Amino acid sequence: MKIKDIILGLVCLNVITLAVIASSPLTCPADLGKECASDGEWKGEFFPGIPEIKHEGPFSKNPLSFKWYNAEEEILGKKMKDWMRFSVAFWHTFRGTGDPFGAPTKVWPWEDGTNSLAMAKRRMRANFEFIRKLGVDLWCFHDRDIAPDGKTLEESNANLDEVVALAKELQGNKIHPLWGTAQLFMHPRYMHGAATSSDVGVYAYAAAQVKKAMEVTHYLGGENYVFWGGREGYQTLLNTDMKRELNHLARFLEGAVAWKKKIGFKGTLLIEPKPQEPTKHQYDWDAATTAAFLLKYGLSGEFKLNIECNHATLSGHSCHHELETARNFGMLGNIDANTGDPQIGWDTDQFLTDIGEATLVMLSVVRNGGLAPGGFNFDAKLRRESTDVEDLFIAHISGMDTLARGLRNVAKLLEDGSLTELVRKRYESFDTEIGAQIEAGKADFEALEKKAMEWGEPKVGSAKQELAEMLFQSAL
Amino acid sequence: MKIKDIILGLVCLNVITLAVIASSPLTCPADLGKECASDGEWKGEFFPGIPEIKHEGPFSKNPLSFKWYNAEEEILGKKMKDWMRFSVAFWHTFRGTGDPFGAPTKVWPWEDGTNSLAMAKRRMRANFEFIRKLGVDLWCFHDRDIAPDGKTLEESNANLDEVVALAKELQGNKIHPLWGTAQLFMHPRYMHGAATSSDVGVYAYAAAQVKKAMEVTHYLGGENYVFWGGREGYQTLLNTDMKRELNHLARFLEGAVAWKKKIGFKGTLLIEPKPQEPTKHQYDWDAATTAAFLLKYGLSGEFKLNIECNHATLSGHSCHHELETARNFGMLGNIDANTGDPQIGWDTDQFLTDIGEATLVMLSVVRNGGLAPGGFNFDAKLRRESTDVEDLFIAHISGMDTLARGLRNVAKLLEDGSLTELVRKRYESFDTEIGAQIEAGKADFEALEKKAMEWGEPKVGSAKQELAEMLFQSAL
Amino acid sequence: MKIKDIILGLVCLNVITLAVIASSPLTCPADLGKECASDGEWKGEFFPGIPEIKHEGPFSKNPLSFKWYNAEEEILGKKMKDWMRFSVAFWHTFRGTGDPFGAPTKVWPWEDGTNSLAMAKRRMRANFEFIRKLGVDLWCFHDRDIAPDGKTLEESNANLDEVVALAKELQGNKIHPLWGTAQLFMHPRYMHGAATSSDVGVYAYAAAQVKKAMEVTHYLGGENYVFWGGREGYQTLLNTDMKRELNHLARFLEGAVAWKKKIGFKGTLLIEPKPQEPTKHQYDWDAATTAAFLLKYGLSGEFKLNIECNHATLSGHSCHHELETARNFGMLGNIDANTGDPQIGWDTDQFLTDIGEATLVMLSVVRNGGLAPGGFNFDAKLRRESTDVEDLFIAHISGMDTLARGLRNVAKLLEDGSLTELVRKRYESFDTEIGAQIEAGKADFEALEKKAMEWGEPKVGSAKQELAEMLFQSAL
Amino acid sequence: MKIKDIILGLVCLNVITLAVIASSPLTCPADLGKECASDGEWKGEFFPGIPEIKHEGPFSKNPLSFKWYNAEEEILGKKMKDWMRFSVAFWHTFRGTGDPFGAPTKVWPWEDGTNSLAMAKRRMRANFEFIRKLGVDLWCFHDRDIAPDGKTLEESNANLDEVVALAKELQGNKIHPLWGTAQLFMHPRYMHGAATSSDVGVYAYAAAQVKKAMEVTHYLGGENYVFWGGREGYQTLLNTDMKRELNHLARFLEGAVAWKKKIGFKGTLLIEPKPQEPTKHQYDWDAATTAAFLLKYGLSGEFKLNIECNHATLSGHSCHHELETARNFGMLGNIDANTGDPQIGWDTDQFLTDIGEATLVMLSVVRNGGLAPGGFNFDAKLRRESTDVEDLFIAHISGMDTLARGLRNVAKLLEDGSLTELVRKRYESFDTEIGAQIEAGKADFEALEKKAMEWGEPKVGSAKQELAEMLFQSAL
Repeated sequence: MKIKDIILGLVCLNVITLAVIASSPLTCPADLGKECASDGEWKGEFFPGIPEIKHEGPFSKNPLSFKWYNAEEEILGKKMKDWMRFSVAFWHTFRGTGDPFGAPTKVWPWEDGTNSLAMAKRRMRANFEFIRKLGVDLWCFHDRDIAPDGKTLEESNANLDEVVALAKELQGNKIHPLWGTAQLFMHPRYMHGAATSSDVGVYAYAAAQVKKAMEVTHYLGGENYVFWGGREGYQTLLNTDMKRELNHLARFLEGAVAWKKKIGFKGTLLIEPKPQEPTKHQYDWDAATTAAFLLKYGLSGEFKLNIECNHATLSGHSCHHELETARNFGMLGNIDANTGDPQIGWDTDQFLTDIGEATLVMLSVVRNGGLAPGGFNFDAKLRRESTDVEDLFIAHISGMDTLARGLRNVAKLLEDGSLTELVRKRYESFDTEIGAQIEAGKADFEALEKKAMEWGEPKVGSAKQELAEMLFQSAL
Repeated sequence: MKIKDIILGLVCLNVITLAVIASSPLTCPADLGKECASDGEWKGEFFPGIPEIKHEGPFSKNPLSFKWYNAEEEILGKKMKDWMRFSVAFWHTFRGTGDPFGAPTKVWPWEDGTNSLAMAKRRMRANFEFIRKLGVDLWCFHDRDIAPDGKTLEESNANLDEVVALAKELQGNKIHPLWGTAQLFMHPRYMHGAATSSDVGVYAYAAAQVKKAMEVTHYLGGENYVFWGGREGYQTLLNTDMKRELNHLARFLEGAVAWKKKIGFKGTLLIEPKPQEPTKHQYDWDAATTAAFLLKYGLSGEFKLNIECNHATLSGHSCHHELETARNFGMLGNIDANTGDPQIGWDTDQFLTDIGEATLVMLSVVRNGGLAPGGFNFDAKLRRESTDVEDLFIAHISGMDTLARGLRNVAKLLEDGSLTELVRKRYESFDTEIGAQIEAGKADFEALEKKAMEWGEPKVGSAKQELAEMLFQSAL
Repeated sequence: MKIKDIILGLVCLNVITLAVIASSPLTCPADLGKECASDGEWKGEFFPGIPEIKHEGPFSKNPLSFKWYNAEEEILGKKMKDWMRFSVAFWHTFRGTGDPFGAPTKVWPWEDGTNSLAMAKRRMRANFEFIRKLGVDLWCFHDRDIAPDGKTLEESNANLDEVVALAKELQGNKIHPLWGTAQLFMHPRYMHGAATSSDVGVYAYAAAQVKKAMEVTHYLGGENYVFWGGREGYQTLLNTDMKRELNHLARFLEGAVAWKKKIGFKGTLLIEPKPQEPTKHQYDWDAATTAAFLLKYGLSGEFKLNIECNHATLSGHSCHHELETARNFGMLGNIDANTGDPQIGWDTDQFLTDIGEATLVMLSVVRNGGLAPGGFNFDAKLRRESTDVEDLFIAHISGMDTLARGLRNVAKLLEDGSLTELVRKRYESFDTEIGAQIEAGKADFEALEKKAMEWGEPKVGSAKQELAEMLFQSAL
Repeated sequence: MKIKDIILGLVCLNVITLAVIASSPLTCPADLGKECASDGEWKGEFFPGIPEIKHEGPFSKNPLSFKWYNAEEEILGKKMKDWMRFSVAFWHTFRGTGDPFGAPTKVWPWEDGTNSLAMAKRRMRANFEFIRKLGVDLWCFHDRDIAPDGKTLEESNANLDEVVALAKELQGNKIHPLWGTAQLFMHPRYMHGAATSSDVGVYAYAAAQVKKAMEVTHYLGGENYVFWGGREGYQTLLNTDMKRELNHLARFLEGAVAWKKKIGFKGTLLIEPKPQEPTKHQYDWDAATTAAFLLKYGLSGEFKLNIECNHATLSGHSCHHELETARNFGMLGNIDANTGDPQIGWDTDQFLTDIGEATLVMLSVVRNGGLAPGGFNFDAKLRRESTDVEDLFIAHISGMDTLARGLRNVAKLLEDGSLTELVRKRYESFDTEIGAQIEAGKADFEALEKKAMEWGEPKVGSAKQELAEMLFQSAL
């Protein structure tokens, strides 16, 4: 028995903010008192007790400090902040309310219970205070989480423009988006998909929304633009024309590439694989599936991948596997830095706090020479039961520190060199004349058969997995 | 990336029903026109195009007919309706809106976008029209889905009383609840659990809510009362005192037993196991875990189990396994007749349409001599993309027909007898003197060793699994 | 395809039949008495009690008859046997011994406990008696399960030649291999992979083995040649150079293509995806991953896919999904007709007996216009506990009947036409001028935005999933 | 615990070392030259290059040293060796040959390719050299892995007695078994189960085998006796009488308890839960299921649990969950210290090297006040590709160091105290008068309702999960 979808919205809103809705104009709730000025604007700080977060080193007991992340410190030839390129995700941090199985639990002080334009702006101010206090330079967003839907597309665009103008102003010189994107999965119109909807009107609507989202991302100085196909998939093949849907998706992405060029946007286009949820099967299942799709439709040169760790594990792969697969296809562009629970079959989007996992993630990043113009975005949310404002900071600090600790471990691992050497030696029989011929495609089956008979039974060495694990753990 | 929890409620409500909220009294939306009388009551039928559903046999092409379910037909010595005891679940059918990963998609004509008391009553009228047209006699409900939360517990209770009074009237002589229950998982107050909340105030509130829900279930003539611990579990052991929480849960259930006796409620108390979702781990993980808990706390005589097929598979078991496990503990009380997707790790609550699965379910039911005073409730919901009113009927018909077909298959299987005989023969070496001694606990290890030496190497026969599968499939 | 229990089994028989081994020449066990002539050859039938299996129709109670499969009957314009193209898999049927978690349980009467050449020939005779009694025309094999490893590659090749010569003779005019393949995963030399081994000597050895296996497949009139990369993957990325391994795999497959052309083999080259087991990750994870690999290395024109249902589910997909994915890539070539257990995380290779699943499988086959020159092979084995000789027949009959029933259901479904029509209607908004422009890549984002504004909010219809399921189930 | 690859392996060596077998007496292979004396005994060391393993501290680069485990060092009031009580598992270390999906890869120098009694004794000598060099005092075993099956039970018992006599002598004063057990799952006779076999002869045989295994465990000074029901479960319910099988299992365990008392064995009887593999469902699925079974049959006072981490994760639980569940039932007796792969659905039995996991495991151990008379056994095996003798040492060192590091982390965590305090505060509303009444079962629903109305809406605090995770990670 489960009611997770009982008009969450309709009902729960009423429970919590009934008085507000009934009695107030849409922007400034009666009970927020003095912080809310007569013009509906928030006065003073949004996070009054929270200082700018500083690096205090691993022995600090202060939860509101970095123990491992030290932005300006140089590791492996680059500043930590340049390896990491952390960004704050607007949706989880400012629009997340818990888990999908119950009513919202978070009622931040600055929220007035509405989805008004004025509230959107107030929230955007909170966002930039948060970013500055956390000490990062990047953020990322969907169109519909920063500005409310209007009654028409034109009105929605106008709402978006108004909030974007404010964001541009609040960004100042230093801050800009790691990426932007369009939210094409929550609204009922997208229930059958956006680019893969069975309805041509929805396809057109989605194109218009992406067009606009690309424009505002460009305007804000965004470095990338992301596609996540939250409803691009199927619930059952019985009612689905998969071939036709995949063709539509390819056409849609071609359109996006053309539009990007037309407006002079130089950012990277990223696709974010996810195997399922909300649909039973999503077309961008994992890195390899997405690569297959792009290769088949001649789009592989135009897109990179945004790998999410929790999506990786839902698709049956380790996060490290997905990162390395993306690298092998030359497509590693960005990382959604979160984690899932190994015993849970849905996307929990937790902050990554596992040190071993973080070390493997950073190993891929270092091998990739960094991620720029991509970076890390925290596609991670507070647990539904975490309801203090400070929890927002603690969670981000914990996530940043864990990855920073991972980077430090990678440095130790590479400086020690034993693991690298173990791998090199394992393949050294290919660093020979015949190995080179094989790798150059010059050793045919007859020649190889001759060799095999000449050599007799191969002597095969130990793979030394336990030693490799010992060397890896020693660096943690 | 995923936004499944972006204040679903707040935002999406506004999108869809903005005009309604802004411009109308809370009960009768302006745009529903003529069906809505001046006093806010619905006029005429809620399902105007839908007739009473009739049995037309397996060759009918009419989706709005039963092909296999024939309520009055006798099978294996009982009327089909008495084997099945189908009930309509109010929450999925009347409050369900899709999946938990997006905004609601269903806007039934009779809904006015509010959670008002007047709307609750209108919805209850729709419920009984649905039940009657479907041709069943039972329904089931949570307190908070039939009546809105008030600002206080007293007000909530008053709301509930008002709706329950109407339901009592609408029930007439024939219809009554299979079971009632309290919704102790959606509201933010229950985010840490109800009986297992870390907060004593929540424990008390939950007790009060269950007390009331038992009373109204009793008042309506309900035959059972269900406990589903949607938040009784943990998200992480790091912040959890599991032992203390389990003790609280036992105390809570003792309290419920005492209250049941005090008010003279004779119905069965049922616990519904579920392994996880919303929490990482729920205390009533599966049938065996729940039995262990009840046995440990001396409660096993007071409760039976309500087995849900989708919960079974999420816990790593087949549905048939959970049903048989419950039977072995003497605890099979009711069935939530739904199904999941074998490749999906969350609770999809689909209508069961797999014939083989339905046959296994009915095999357990027949072996149990039926389920009364329990029965089947459709803890199953329309897919988010299914938005026609007729889909509600099609889904229920399909689910009922599938189980009915399962029952017919069981009859074939038992009448043929080959599978029963295969199993009997498999164990016949225990139908001997030494077998009887073993089963009576009278053969000790020394005696058995002597036998083993005397007998020499046992001859072990084939398990005939492929033949068993062939016999089973032949009955489908 | 998987042999994990083949050689293991037979060889391990030694434990059990030590006396036999100790006291006898390697080919004819002392205790088999009269069936074993003085020259070590088997006399009379291998399956003395088993007649040729006939079609007796769905009401037959005879387990040794076909209820649904009727080889010469025409369905949807083709004989059943031409739709199905069933083949017997030598490894499971004649070398399978149970499950990988215990000692072998099957001791077929004709086995003498050795892996000798003489025993290999006797076994081959049993194979053809089995094939003929079952009434099929095709079989499939690995090199090392039909003939024993020698001390050198030359000796192994000679052993293979000797057995193949006999097989050629026994085949007669009607029978030939659906496909052949080389076993590159059981022997310790392949523990790090074959084409992806870290050892160049193993790469050469594997090339020689595939060269020979292609030759004998060609010689026997095989219609396809299969690659299953049972050890082509990794156990941990810590000790693995994934990029180098993938490059080696591509070179290896290029070599195979060249050799095929050189010897004039016209058969299809097939790759069989499997996600994992024995390794943590196998490079041919699923259909899409394999397609990505082939596309990346320019090999997509040379290979098709052999889809196995149990591998599909282990990779997180339904079997139908994998079949349709292969079709979308134009790569559906053959089907390993087995099934797994939805609650089990390893490859159980059971005979498929689920009617719904079989109907979906046959739906893909029919849409593909059949599978020829591919077909179905039973990559399915008796359960470890099934130890009667007749169980071999019962299992195959059950598997063939289930797929035959699936084909009959597809015919019903297509003749009824309702489901096809439901899907056609769902997409009909694309059967318009603007739809055609989109599908032709002629509608850019500006034009689409204009349309979106002109049209306003799209009206999105119900996906009718429950109706689709009802229509599907009605055909079963 | 699982032996799936033990006998299989050694025996299957025959394939590979056929020449050896053919030409030599069964105990001393021709090619081992000088180490093998004329009487078939091994001369000199089995592990000639390996010194006694010493603690060298975390900065040592020597793989053959302990970095974290320091046997005599005191932590939290106890010597490390007393917290850990490490034991070497004979089966994995001396009979393991790889994974169950291919032929054995390990050919230890002292193995002669036979399963003879002489070889068994030589192997036992290797075992004690290994134990001494590793620096532990405990070992554990199954009957059939230390001594070969005979042709009759009497002969098997005699073989066992002979090897056990040697083991007794080699043990000296310091070493003894942590536990012994009977192998009731590999032999074909147990294919339908042992205590739950459908065959009465098998039940008797199993009883005789357990009787003997308890006797030799007692004779060797074993501190515990373990039951792992490797085939006590079902493959399909279609051919299974689950109720009868469970009753037989209960009778069997009663018999074991009686026998234990009769022979004066004071050790703990342990049951090891495992959800599945080899069977689809095993009756001792997880800790809670096993507790339910024991409670139902009145056996809960006589048994404790042996928790294996890899079994925990296969059953859908974290290892920490299973440990805490066992503790809650008062049943935590021993730990199989291994780990699985979070993306793999079978039992990989890897050495645990995850520091976070090890810290959680040790947290349960510390809370339990240690495990004695239980301890840790390494139910972990080398990967199939790890074939150097030194890999055996590296793996054990790595596993021991990881748990030792876990223990050190627990000490840090407890000394810091912040996490403990966080949990205490979370529940402090129950440390009140009303809380005490609830916990004493003295607050009925009427009283609680009154309180709930008096208190109004509860204020529910944040669960601080992210802070808890930060505090936990800081201790690593």
